[in-house]
Amino acid sequence: MNRAQIIAQIRLKKSFLCVGLDTDIDKIPKFLLAEPNPILAFNKLIIDATHDTCIAYKINTAFYECRGIQGWQTMVDTLNYIPKNIFTIADAKRGDIGNTATMYAKAFFDEKASGMSFDAVTVAPYMGADSVKPFLAFADKWTILLALTSNESCKNFQLIKNEDGFLFQQVIAQASHWASIEQLMYVVGATRGQAFADIRKQIPHHFLLVPGVGEQGGSLAEVCKYGLTADCGLIVSSSRGIIYAGADEKFAQAARTEAVKIQQQMQVELVKNGFLDN
Amino acid sequence: MNRAQIIAQIRLKKSFLCVGLDTDIDKIPKFLLAEPNPILAFNKLIIDATHDTCIAYKINTAFYECRGIQGWQTMVDTLNYIPKNIFTIADAKRGDIGNTATMYAKAFFDEKASGMSFDAVTVAPYMGADSVKPFLAFADKWTILLALTSNESCKNFQLIKNEDGFLFQQVIAQASHWASIEQLMYVVGATRGQAFADIRKQIPHHFLLVPGVGEQGGSLAEVCKYGLTADCGLIVSSSRGIIYAGADEKFAQAARTEAVKIQQQMQVELVKNGFLDN
Repeated sequence: MNRAQIIAQIRLKKSFLCVGLDTDIDKIPKFLLAEPNPILAFNKLIIDATHDTCIAYKINTAFYECRGIQGWQTMVDTLNYIPKNIFTIADAKRGDIGNTATMYAKAFFDEKASGMSFDAVTVAPYMGADSVKPFLAFADKWTILLALTSNESCKNFQLIKNEDGFLFQQVIAQASHWASIEQLMYVVGATRGQAFADIRKQIPHHFLLVPGVGEQGGSLAEVCKYGLTADCGLIVSSSRGIIYAGADEKFAQAARTEAVKIQQQMQVELVKNGFLDN
Repeated sequence: MNRAQIIAQIRLKKSFLCVGLDTDIDKIPKFLLAEPNPILAFNKLIIDATHDTCIAYKINTAFYECRGIQGWQTMVDTLNYIPKNIFTIADAKRGDIGNTATMYAKAFFDEKASGMSFDAVTVAPYMGADSVKPFLAFADKWTILLALTSNESCKNFQLIKNEDGFLFQQVIAQASHWASIEQLMYVVGATRGQAFADIRKQIPHHFLLVPGVGEQGGSLAEVCKYGLTADCGLIVSSSRGIIYAGADEKFAQAARTEAVKIQQQMQVELVKNGFLDN
């Protein structure tokens, strides 16, 4: 899915919501444990209930890997269940060099090799250009590079500073030479409100994947105030706040109610911003 | 496997070699393609041929993930084939926060959850303490944190410097407060010769996992000169240089020859260093 198609979906759905499928067997409604594959059953019902409210799903690979082969199969099955007009993100935060990075890219991009073809994968920058460029070699896919994350300890290293700015700013500055806005996005945590203003000075046009609204305390209004662009430029992700909104038989309806609530806030912001007319 | 047991194995085998199982279907001898699972067949023959020359195997997860579910099963089967007295490393370079990091730790440490129980996993530091501590919560397991890697573009970010030193030095400085030498190792590339001297001033006792000897141009003598400690303190990894030493029916013998050659160099270094008597 290319940039124009993402923007078209945002316009159509009046939403830039990404639903995070961080599905934990210990947190899903108990009645689902009778299903042959409770996590897949949960994911399907969540997707059924939310797909018209969101433009992306983000699969957090850790929650599937921790269940071994069965988990990996559930990841494949979940990905294949997502409607084709929705942007799919493997939140895998991979980072390794050269040929190894190519193998990771194949794992998430090359259906013939691995059985999965996500639109995008999240990548960690610590090892530098060698570890990012192999993902960018997949021309019709997206690389979403960690920049400034939503967690407290982002300060340990991302906020190390020298005369060239913070580390996360140097990540953005360097990586922006490696690919265009048609192929590269950045992760910026929703808890970083004011930082969005500075980041938009650095990269006025890149899409940002923004986790941390809701459950982690980020404010959607704040993120939009500083982060929205003429093309929207934001994909805001919520996981637990939506998928665990309910804990009984009506959990999918509860998830939908949460997702619609966020979608409606997004619509207001998109109108205020002039991206949408009404 | 705890620190004392690792040191005992080094003493027993007169080796601190780690064989990297970066097994690529396009690089293994063609005759193996007739096997039901060529990669597993290759790995088993490599393990049979090298297990008395090395004290660790490192499984590069990317090479298995890129083959989807079948690849994940091959990783499990390979791990289970490794003799129990050999240290096992999931070279996964994972890095995510909180509960997600716990899920990654379960994927590689918790056999009940995932079918796999490695001794160690490699972890990326970019997201800070939150992304490393959940791995350290597994008290009988090892976390191997990326510090200074062997690739050219390590300079993009790892060598960013301010008044507190290089980024990689700040990673080492901070992480050394998070766990003891009984649970934490660092990745330092073999191509960094002189840097080992400075790193040893910072962390005189930690084990270092050292990739890049051989195929990436690192010198074992140089690494030993600056990196060896009274407890050895090094696990030096070689992948392609060993496993692809031969390309025909005798590939496993060729791999053994390479591994023995490195082991013998290591023995010389350990004697020179006073770790071994003869």
